[in-house]
Amino acid sequence: MIRVGVVGTGMIGQDHIHRITNVLKGAQVTAVNDVDEQRARQACAKEHLDAEVYESGIDLIQAPDVDAVIVTSWGPTHEEFVLAAIEADKPVFCEKPLAVTAEGCKRIVEAELQKEKQYVQVGYMRRYDKGYKALKKLVDEGQVGEPLVVHCAHRAPSAPNFSEDMPLTDSFPHEIDTLRWLLDDEFVSAQVVLPRKTSHSSIQDPHIILLETEKGTRIDAEIFVNCQYGYDIHCEIIGEQGIANLPEPASVLMRKQAKRTNEILVDWKERFLEAYDKEIQEWIDSVQAGKVTGPSAWDGYKVALTVEACVEAKSSREIIAVHKQEIPSLYAASDKLLKE
Amino acid sequence: MIRVGVVGTGMIGQDHIHRITNVLKGAQVTAVNDVDEQRARQACAKEHLDAEVYESGIDLIQAPDVDAVIVTSWGPTHEEFVLAAIEADKPVFCEKPLAVTAEGCKRIVEAELQKEKQYVQVGYMRRYDKGYKALKKLVDEGQVGEPLVVHCAHRAPSAPNFSEDMPLTDSFPHEIDTLRWLLDDEFVSAQVVLPRKTSHSSIQDPHIILLETEKGTRIDAEIFVNCQYGYDIHCEIIGEQGIANLPEPASVLMRKQAKRTNEILVDWKERFLEAYDKEIQEWIDSVQAGKVTGPSAWDGYKVALTVEACVEAKSSREIIAVHKQEIPSLYAASDKLLKE
Amino acid sequence: MIRVGVVGTGMIGQDHIHRITNVLKGAQVTAVNDVDEQRARQACAKEHLDAEVYESGIDLIQAPDVDAVIVTSWGPTHEEFVLAAIEADKPVFCEKPLAVTAEGCKRIVEAELQKEKQYVQVGYMRRYDKGYKALKKLVDEGQVGEPLVVHCAHRAPSAPNFSEDMPLTDSFPHEIDTLRWLLDDEFVSAQVVLPRKTSHSSIQDPHIILLETEKGTRIDAEIFVNCQYGYDIHCEIIGEQGIANLPEPASVLMRKQAKRTNEILVDWKERFLEAYDKEIQEWIDSVQAGKVTGPSAWDGYKVALTVEACVEAKSSREIIAVHKQEIPSLYAASDKLLKE
Amino acid sequence: MIRVGVVGTGMIGQDHIHRITNVLKGAQVTAVNDVDEQRARQACAKEHLDAEVYESGIDLIQAPDVDAVIVTSWGPTHEEFVLAAIEADKPVFCEKPLAVTAEGCKRIVEAELQKEKQYVQVGYMRRYDKGYKALKKLVDEGQVGEPLVVHCAHRAPSAPNFSEDMPLTDSFPHEIDTLRWLLDDEFVSAQVVLPRKTSHSSIQDPHIILLETEKGTRIDAEIFVNCQYGYDIHCEIIGEQGIANLPEPASVLMRKQAKRTNEILVDWKERFLEAYDKEIQEWIDSVQAGKVTGPSAWDGYKVALTVEACVEAKSSREIIAVHKQEIPSLYAASDKLLKE
Repeated sequence: MIRVGVVGTGMIGQDHIHRITNVLKGAQVTAVNDVDEQRARQACAKEHLDAEVYESGIDLIQAPDVDAVIVTSWGPTHEEFVLAAIEADKPVFCEKPLAVTAEGCKRIVEAELQKEKQYVQVGYMRRYDKGYKALKKLVDEGQVGEPLVVHCAHRAPSAPNFSEDMPLTDSFPHEIDTLRWLLDDEFVSAQVVLPRKTSHSSIQDPHIILLETEKGTRIDAEIFVNCQYGYDIHCEIIGEQGIANLPEPASVLMRKQAKRTNEILVDWKERFLEAYDKEIQEWIDSVQAGKVTGPSAWDGYKVALTVEACVEAKSSREIIAVHKQEIPSLYAASDKLLKE
Repeated sequence: MIRVGVVGTGMIGQDHIHRITNVLKGAQVTAVNDVDEQRARQACAKEHLDAEVYESGIDLIQAPDVDAVIVTSWGPTHEEFVLAAIEADKPVFCEKPLAVTAEGCKRIVEAELQKEKQYVQVGYMRRYDKGYKALKKLVDEGQVGEPLVVHCAHRAPSAPNFSEDMPLTDSFPHEIDTLRWLLDDEFVSAQVVLPRKTSHSSIQDPHIILLETEKGTRIDAEIFVNCQYGYDIHCEIIGEQGIANLPEPASVLMRKQAKRTNEILVDWKERFLEAYDKEIQEWIDSVQAGKVTGPSAWDGYKVALTVEACVEAKSSREIIAVHKQEIPSLYAASDKLLKE
Repeated sequence: MIRVGVVGTGMIGQDHIHRITNVLKGAQVTAVNDVDEQRARQACAKEHLDAEVYESGIDLIQAPDVDAVIVTSWGPTHEEFVLAAIEADKPVFCEKPLAVTAEGCKRIVEAELQKEKQYVQVGYMRRYDKGYKALKKLVDEGQVGEPLVVHCAHRAPSAPNFSEDMPLTDSFPHEIDTLRWLLDDEFVSAQVVLPRKTSHSSIQDPHIILLETEKGTRIDAEIFVNCQYGYDIHCEIIGEQGIANLPEPASVLMRKQAKRTNEILVDWKERFLEAYDKEIQEWIDSVQAGKVTGPSAWDGYKVALTVEACVEAKSSREIIAVHKQEIPSLYAASDKLLKE
Repeated sequence: MIRVGVVGTGMIGQDHIHRITNVLKGAQVTAVNDVDEQRARQACAKEHLDAEVYESGIDLIQAPDVDAVIVTSWGPTHEEFVLAAIEADKPVFCEKPLAVTAEGCKRIVEAELQKEKQYVQVGYMRRYDKGYKALKKLVDEGQVGEPLVVHCAHRAPSAPNFSEDMPLTDSFPHEIDTLRWLLDDEFVSAQVVLPRKTSHSSIQDPHIILLETEKGTRIDAEIFVNCQYGYDIHCEIIGEQGIANLPEPASVLMRKQAKRTNEILVDWKERFLEAYDKEIQEWIDSVQAGKVTGPSAWDGYKVALTVEACVEAKSSREIIAVHKQEIPSLYAASDKLLKE
């Protein structure tokens, strides 16, 4: 039974505590910490947890009865806690972003390289979604032939608290990670197109982001975080032989009032609920097996580099190169054992 | 240019006058008659037609400058006018029903047999619908294998003027004709099941009708003429190798207010508008070619026999045999020339 | 941690052992039995289980360190083991059928009535399927109005080992249980229609079964166990205001070779995999809570009565009444506590 | 009865002769011309036409018994024939392109301006497609709110004879015209992105074209003329309130071999067959009414300006401005009478 310490007990932290306690196998939450200690205590009470509440996230990470760490604190603190976990030789699951700058991600990568071990999994849960997995399977089997173009859309009903660049820094990273994984390819450049703005928001919304990969595949992604109508994720891969689309979630077909209707989800948590469960279960299993199997620190770093190119592309209106980086051998062998 | 006389200028008569005058090729309406002479004159005026208005339908049929006749008068008068057209050696298109009793249909068949010629086409327009034709093509090609079961649904939003048996006598005949044609088979028995009644009507509604064919194929058909939500026609053929469904009409897919929506038609005329055009155009062409190519008097008779079995099945709650009839050789060769 | 004993380690027994051991929370398999002791030992080895292997199912049921029992043995033995569990005052999950005759089910019901407690949950897993639950929610909310007609289809690619009545006794019970639950209604009569047989089987296949409920709702169900093309379950509820359809499983949409294509599942276990997990998890939770929350012995008995009416309806070609039974008060309060 | 002269009897010219002769009302082809006189004669023979065959297109246009002209000759000759028709004061329907350069289109516009009359309709048939019309209706009604982004795809199975820029000059003009009409907006800039090339062609294929409109709406259009799988046209309008998609053509849904399948058309003529009929019928009607109602010379000119910007954008890899032009008052009043 893996003893997990959770740093950060906001909404997503509480979700992970809940699923480890009530849904998943092989782990229990034995330690929690939050910048607001009261919230940490409430998170335990909600799940009837007999976990220790630490005043300091660093102390929690170093505690001898904590086997593995989940970092779900405020984004700017991720880097410090992840580095502490690596320092303490403990597997760590870090919600996105891995760090708020590519530079920060790079420090984490370097910490792992110095230890010559992987410790970090980043919370890109779409890789665990049944639909994305089915899509990747078809692409990997060559059923659409070589991918040439990908059309994506990432839509949410509203994002009242988003500042100007958050669609690029907070929403789009999901597509960035998923596309690298789906296509087994790296981005070389980014461009951002700014359509007419919706009147439902004061920030620029929607964006169209154009990415180019090393193999020449072109992606156009619409990110529209105030689309009103629902939480709706699309991914369509145009290959030499045919096209494959991410499945739409199953729903009841209604015939009523001169319309044939299926419901569209509105809440992102419902859309990827099973993917979150699967993600954390596989992380627990990987901790037990002593290896990192999910999105790595390197993946988190690559996402951050791409995000930074997008932000620069938006402000400059230019096509911006994504910094090319040679992948270290530690990450090249994806299933390398963590503890040998 | 075929000179057409129209007997009966109600709604469907006006529709046919409109399409002959404005949409179709090769014919013009030169004579009209209606029980309400004023209505006949208005029908002409509406289309700027310089047609002769006859006081008597029989006179119209016998007029030397009328080449072919369309009967769209009140149902109970169909038999008389069709018999007069046969007597006058003129091709006649008769809206459904051919006659209000199987006995009446039989007299029409016998009139043709006596003349040793076919004159009559009955207005079963679904055979001319693109979707039904595509479905028949697949079945004929054997793409679903031998048909074993057919599920049908015939739904209309409301039918305030329908009396108790009209769903069987006025709506269901479309399915009867279409299924004989689709399956190339004859019905041997009928049963009627009476579900819980909708509160939106005072008559029994919906009905489920069970038909058995000579080859053993079983049909279940839901007829629901006060379904509220739309005019919606379904036909699903279950074969040994697979299943084929009548296409749903194309429509814009909307994503709005947490729903993915396609419109369903409400008006039956819109649903089969193109089929009506095609039906009358092919009838004009067949008149020019001197042969009957559409649903024949025999088809009209077989439909009437089946309807009578259904009505008896409803009142008796028994399984009722459909009278078996040997097909006369005149009708067996479907493309026999009308004028030799 | 509930200590579960499993009687019968065939395919479905092994599946449940696997999910309790690897997927679900709150229980462990501590005892197993099979008519083939070697198979019982292999089932344990496969899951690295340190469970006791009993020579006798009855001994297992009576063992003091078994808290709850799962009966997944050969159908004809279910009754004996379930009765033994009731006798031993232990909660028991019994795979369908509860007993191979309605008479046998009745003896189980009477055993519970005598104890004045419910012990039994029957394995009708469709109630736990996300799609069926969404459908029931819409019906319960009145979104289609009062149900008048239900069209069902239950298709499997092939059933080479099925004897003549097994489509009625082994496949159709799923629809029987699901429809009682969906409609909150009881069946009053059954009729079976025998369509032309597929050449892919020597038994009668497909069947059409017509059921009537107390409220007058009519069901037509196509059971086709050699349909070739896939495992495909449909349920369409025709209500006064509109229609609701069971969702089709989500899948990748492909565009290739002049076709727009979604995959249809072929394996029934894949179709209801998540429903099985949910079913057993809720059973474990209900054992912990000391009450029966799933399909009860009474539900199993009602299914058996309906199956017997269907089998008689098939052989007699008559409409057969389903024996009406007053529901005992023990079952009327569905959430009655098991242990008070 | 409008007497139509057809200049150019290749495939599309023969199609228009066929539909005027056999399908449409109000016109007859009385004169034909082709660079290959033999082909002109065969075109007449095929339709049993008693039309005069002219050696010179110009002579045909000037013939007193020709009321209106259809230009379906080789693209580079369009300008000369259209100018001749304007000079002869005759309505002219010209297949796309209006002229092979924007400069040539401008000369046609200027000829009309000098005459102070419109004579020209350009063959952009998509405006007559039922699906596009339904889409435009929803947009005009404001059902998706203000359009912000449009995603288009124009795919054909193969284009073995296409030279490098033909996807931009021959395929994409359909989208250009349709989008101006759908959005009631003008393009201000174009950019062309070159994805990895398919191995099924030697030219660049696919292209992604980005257009910006005066209102700020952004279009991304995938043009893929060797996509292998079918002729498949998509148009998705992302508005402030929701999304509307061009309908996919209706087709039979099959369930077979573990797949749920609809056919995709392969032949572009089948896809827009009804639109072609409607287009030419409305042109005939407009000739009779003495006014131009379809895509005008101005529309043809605007398309040509946009195409030239796309071609330059492709070769330069830059964002290229589309030349802005003030619309002359002659074209601003779209229903201005042709003959006053």
